[in-house]
Amino acid sequence: MVLLLFGNGVVANALLADSKGKDGGWIVITAGWGFAVLCGIVTSLAVGGVAHLNPAVTLAGAVTSGDYSHVVPYIAAQMAGAIVSGVLVWLVYLPHWAGSDPESKLAVFCTQPAIRAPAANALTEFLGTVALIVVGTAIGSKGVSASGLAPGLSPFLWGILVWALGLSLGGPTGYAINPARDLGPRIAHALLPIAGKRDADWSYAWVPVVAPLLGGVVGAVIVRATGII
Amino acid sequence: MVLLLFGNGVVANALLADSKGKDGGWIVITAGWGFAVLCGIVTSLAVGGVAHLNPAVTLAGAVTSGDYSHVVPYIAAQMAGAIVSGVLVWLVYLPHWAGSDPESKLAVFCTQPAIRAPAANALTEFLGTVALIVVGTAIGSKGVSASGLAPGLSPFLWGILVWALGLSLGGPTGYAINPARDLGPRIAHALLPIAGKRDADWSYAWVPVVAPLLGGVVGAVIVRATGII
Amino acid sequence: MVLLLFGNGVVANALLADSKGKDGGWIVITAGWGFAVLCGIVTSLAVGGVAHLNPAVTLAGAVTSGDYSHVVPYIAAQMAGAIVSGVLVWLVYLPHWAGSDPESKLAVFCTQPAIRAPAANALTEFLGTVALIVVGTAIGSKGVSASGLAPGLSPFLWGILVWALGLSLGGPTGYAINPARDLGPRIAHALLPIAGKRDADWSYAWVPVVAPLLGGVVGAVIVRATGII
Amino acid sequence: MVLLLFGNGVVANALLADSKGKDGGWIVITAGWGFAVLCGIVTSLAVGGVAHLNPAVTLAGAVTSGDYSHVVPYIAAQMAGAIVSGVLVWLVYLPHWAGSDPESKLAVFCTQPAIRAPAANALTEFLGTVALIVVGTAIGSKGVSASGLAPGLSPFLWGILVWALGLSLGGPTGYAINPARDLGPRIAHALLPIAGKRDADWSYAWVPVVAPLLGGVVGAVIVRATGII
Repeated sequence: MVLLLFGNGVVANALLADSKGKDGGWIVITAGWGFAVLCGIVTSLAVGGVAHLNPAVTLAGAVTSGDYSHVVPYIAAQMAGAIVSGVLVWLVYLPHWAGSDPESKLAVFCTQPAIRAPAANALTEFLGTVALIVVGTAIGSKGVSASGLAPGLSPFLWGILVWALGLSLGGPTGYAINPARDLGPRIAHALLPIAGKRDADWSYAWVPVVAPLLGGVVGAVIVRATGII
Repeated sequence: MVLLLFGNGVVANALLADSKGKDGGWIVITAGWGFAVLCGIVTSLAVGGVAHLNPAVTLAGAVTSGDYSHVVPYIAAQMAGAIVSGVLVWLVYLPHWAGSDPESKLAVFCTQPAIRAPAANALTEFLGTVALIVVGTAIGSKGVSASGLAPGLSPFLWGILVWALGLSLGGPTGYAINPARDLGPRIAHALLPIAGKRDADWSYAWVPVVAPLLGGVVGAVIVRATGII
Repeated sequence: MVLLLFGNGVVANALLADSKGKDGGWIVITAGWGFAVLCGIVTSLAVGGVAHLNPAVTLAGAVTSGDYSHVVPYIAAQMAGAIVSGVLVWLVYLPHWAGSDPESKLAVFCTQPAIRAPAANALTEFLGTVALIVVGTAIGSKGVSASGLAPGLSPFLWGILVWALGLSLGGPTGYAINPARDLGPRIAHALLPIAGKRDADWSYAWVPVVAPLLGGVVGAVIVRATGII
Repeated sequence: MVLLLFGNGVVANALLADSKGKDGGWIVITAGWGFAVLCGIVTSLAVGGVAHLNPAVTLAGAVTSGDYSHVVPYIAAQMAGAIVSGVLVWLVYLPHWAGSDPESKLAVFCTQPAIRAPAANALTEFLGTVALIVVGTAIGSKGVSASGLAPGLSPFLWGILVWALGLSLGGPTGYAINPARDLGPRIAHALLPIAGKRDADWSYAWVPVVAPLLGGVVGAVIVRATGII
């Protein structure tokens, strides 16, 4: 919920009419998402002692550990938080919906590809999620700990990693790399009484769900095969 | 005082006529405010061993601890520092006031909403302050410490949090999320002999005072209820 | 491979037609490359316990230690990873090649000088690499450790250093400062079936290979002479 | 020397004709200067175990400690490094001088005020330097250490502090806040055979020398009076 309040918030700031951060550019959007991950991790750790914000990461963890018992409850919680966050962003930006165009309004809630080519878009989301799993797992790995990298930096470095993913691999699809991040707010968009909204573009909705989950599995195989974990 | 010297300074740099940082954009303003918080915390720790820069955070701390003895003296000090910082920013940018427009001059000192809708603006300030209290308290929580996040990073992470709040939730109101940050410099604006200034927009002044204080109380209830503190 | 997937990815994002990060500016490109180095170091540490991503740095390490046994195998691995990363970036940005101009397509893979003047361009690459070796070695030096700078910050500070090099010394040549970073993806550009590509500009290819290697040797001499290592 | 190679380099990148970072904006310039300070501190610690890069900071340290024995040799070294760095930046950007305008060429080497008003400009430089001394001293203070802020972060936080100073207080004068940073490269500009250069604007040269030194003394008095040191 915290992740997506901040994450969808920065898109609203950059896209909605009259917002003070309007047209802030790619550095604003990617920094906002990176810091959103950091804030989400810290809050999640404080509340529950663990940080699971992404079904693809949860799935990757289950594949590497062989323990699938947490997958369903964690993903259910991630989806619930994602839908609620959509409501909160709608409230924070309440005066700004009436004057904004329908495409920007949808973009606040879920990703849309720059060039619509579902197979290629799925490939981008897949490779981005593999990179997230491999580098993210590396951050907390024994090899990194043994080399002296302070393990206490992990939440901060995960934030930088997501900032980096947006800067480098986010151009074609807007980098969902997280099924809950995309599907939850898309549902919120469909349910909320947003003035002058378009449909939720359901024909594209499978891409940022299926491709990241597949990327999570393949990423898990890679971190096992390379000895990262 | 340090917080607002840096914080109001970056707005002056981005808005006042002929300033070298003019039109630097939202990334400049939000990074400047984030670093302002970091500098304010470090200086406050060095001088007094504690860092209370925001009446809403002070109030939230009193609600969670049940100890209200510091609320009045801390808020008095915060207001005094806020007014003095307004004088300092006026001096730093002394040659730039004459050629700037009245709206920009006021914006250096206090927030103004992008779309004037007091109830919605108050909701934005309220939700932003709740996010500040919840995530900020999470940074220093036992859950985060137990997970190995270096506690020495707290001042830096508070700076990142305020940077993130500006990026993500700052679009509608310019994110006061701090009564002293808004009211103190607004008083300085009213008192200082600024050439060609407009009035201090007193009709809006209650929003960034009342809503953050309410957000502090509700944030405190949430951090207690969720076990963050 | 990870370094250049992120590094070349950010250039693709900033230059290719219709990409969401198009025209994100120099801050996007330089932050992307800095974080790419951080991600590359962390992944490399996790997989193999060492982080050698740059033939110039590998050569500098051999000159300072007198142990040249790793130079050939490490550089071979760096080149292999660099070529593969070129393929990955091509796949991530697959729908964006057809509509982009040939110069931007080549720029995703390898550096080109702002003003073509090979001797001066080589001098820029040489001085940039010397700065990389001297400051980079300083980060992990005994003097810094003894002064209390947390050694666990090294990967993060190397990322900041490369961000800084791009900001400050990257203007004339696009800062290869790494022979594998430039030659590997240039080979990938030559081999890949990219629609409407230009030639790989082989006449310039020696500059970002020879100058950084020479900078590595001279940098190594300086760090020995100044007692940094 | 390292400080100013990076610091003046980023200005060259942002201002000189045809440079890849041209018009990168205030975030590029201020981040570049912040990271320049970090790189300078790290290199200085590695070589000599201490980091004195700014005559105003050196003077402030002497005032607070009462030990003036290092002031003259340190300032002499700072000036020598500053002049050499001017030569290095000239070499790195060698092909870019011929096509650039004289004002931009001078701005690479030394500061010029946005609005020429020597007394007000001196006040800005004075207040900026006081802020540098007070917050910078706070970073390494007992109060901060006792509160658990990792002392190993000091070089990084000094870099952030200078980034913050540029964002917030750098608009009117370009924030020299360091006599060697301004006077050394100004001398290099006067001596180097730069095509089509203007004069070195000696009538303004006293401002960024005298005001920062005065700010160093007053800053030292404040850190003593407030118990920061």
